[in-house]
Amino acid sequence: MAKFIELKSKKRLATAARITLVGAGPGDPDLMTIKGLKALQSADVVLYDALVNEAILTEAPAHALKVFVGKRAGLHSYRQEEINLLLVQHALNYGHVVRLKGGDSFVFGRGHEELAYARAFDIPVNVVPGISSCIALPELQGIPPTRRALNESFWVLTGTTRSGALSQDVAIAAQSSATAIILMGMRKIREIMICFTQNDKQDTPVMVIQNGSLPNEKYYLGTVSTIADQLEANPTDGPGIIVVGEVVGLHEDLQEVVYGEEREKVRG
Amino acid sequence: MAKFIELKSKKRLATAARITLVGAGPGDPDLMTIKGLKALQSADVVLYDALVNEAILTEAPAHALKVFVGKRAGLHSYRQEEINLLLVQHALNYGHVVRLKGGDSFVFGRGHEELAYARAFDIPVNVVPGISSCIALPELQGIPPTRRALNESFWVLTGTTRSGALSQDVAIAAQSSATAIILMGMRKIREIMICFTQNDKQDTPVMVIQNGSLPNEKYYLGTVSTIADQLEANPTDGPGIIVVGEVVGLHEDLQEVVYGEEREKVRG
Repeated sequence: MAKFIELKSKKRLATAARITLVGAGPGDPDLMTIKGLKALQSADVVLYDALVNEAILTEAPAHALKVFVGKRAGLHSYRQEEINLLLVQHALNYGHVVRLKGGDSFVFGRGHEELAYARAFDIPVNVVPGISSCIALPELQGIPPTRRALNESFWVLTGTTRSGALSQDVAIAAQSSATAIILMGMRKIREIMICFTQNDKQDTPVMVIQNGSLPNEKYYLGTVSTIADQLEANPTDGPGIIVVGEVVGLHEDLQEVVYGEEREKVRG
Repeated sequence: MAKFIELKSKKRLATAARITLVGAGPGDPDLMTIKGLKALQSADVVLYDALVNEAILTEAPAHALKVFVGKRAGLHSYRQEEINLLLVQHALNYGHVVRLKGGDSFVFGRGHEELAYARAFDIPVNVVPGISSCIALPELQGIPPTRRALNESFWVLTGTTRSGALSQDVAIAAQSSATAIILMGMRKIREIMICFTQNDKQDTPVMVIQNGSLPNEKYYLGTVSTIADQLEANPTDGPGIIVVGEVVGLHEDLQEVVYGEEREKVRG
């Protein structure tokens, strides 16, 4: 507390109140942007989430307050309204607040609510996009969201809506040829796969990625009809990203034959 | 050519062949990732596209060959097959080839084709995701791809398919509540808007962004029924990103009233 007050008196007038919303990327600290890093290096306060790799925090200046506002077992869980208020209070008291969130702040991340709230106080807000898991994690596994001749679009959905029910958009996505990329859907994976089965897609390849971009990354490759059982056989509580679509068939594990043919062709 | 040969003899055995596919982000050089920067700093060869901000190239070592393989008026335009071959040849001759593409290599970027081709030669390939315009450019304008209470998903589409026709997915997207984010659709914007009009969405807000994240960024705010005329009144040839959905209504220019109300509320 002493440090808190000391900082307060020292910094209060030194820096104008401002907020930078920074997406920290999917986990690997090097997947933050240069712009995000620069913001962090000039922070007076960092408010960070559970999904942020704490290795990144060492980049903040020694004087910067680092405040954890994520959800973690046994700790107070901040409501969005509290985070909004903390952002504004800290900016007014200390100067530059960096709000560090996993992935991208605006992809199911409520970053826009924080932006709108702070603007109501006339506090300048900058937004630094982050690498979003929805594209990057399949990519790091060699899977593009679309591939010429396979399909022409991808659809990013949340499995869990405000009401707790499965989003109706999942059923529509299952009818389209878009690659469906579903975040926050792990607990509803059976229900989600039923939407695809009802559209005769039981054999469409599916991939689930957990801890993507980190050393403990795990992935499961299956189909609409098998993936829920595969996950049940390997119980886990962590978040994961679900990718449903023909592009999943491009994964290296499933492509040895194709690469072999290509090899013949190019070397032939 | 002398330098080419000299490099060849000097570097050939020094470094093992490898390729890194790096997404350079939407234009602002600081929106590349730290990982992308590190890859670039260890490059022996950089193959880069028209969409890459050339300021980034100064980060490559002085000895690195920098080869432009994008499309530009008056220059030879490389076909994908030629780029694939260049990647492999340069890796085998010089060592570490960084393939630098605008945005993210895997978002309508043919990065996966390059990955598959190089793997057929047993050349190790790393992929470094980039900040994709599809999420980041609306975000830099303060628009999230989804917003609680407005919608629960976003759909990223290409306006221009292999055949040159409008993707059929656009018509399906127009029926959903997903935010539609359309790349490479500027020349088909009237056709695209008709899909939305046919679903009674003539008043849905639309935004078009050009040169996003750069000092010469331009944006147009309108509706499904007005946007094509607005663009026609400001003719331009450049690429742009089209965002259709209620989230566009969150743009600051359209929100003074809302922010005003929020301000009243928070300040009492």
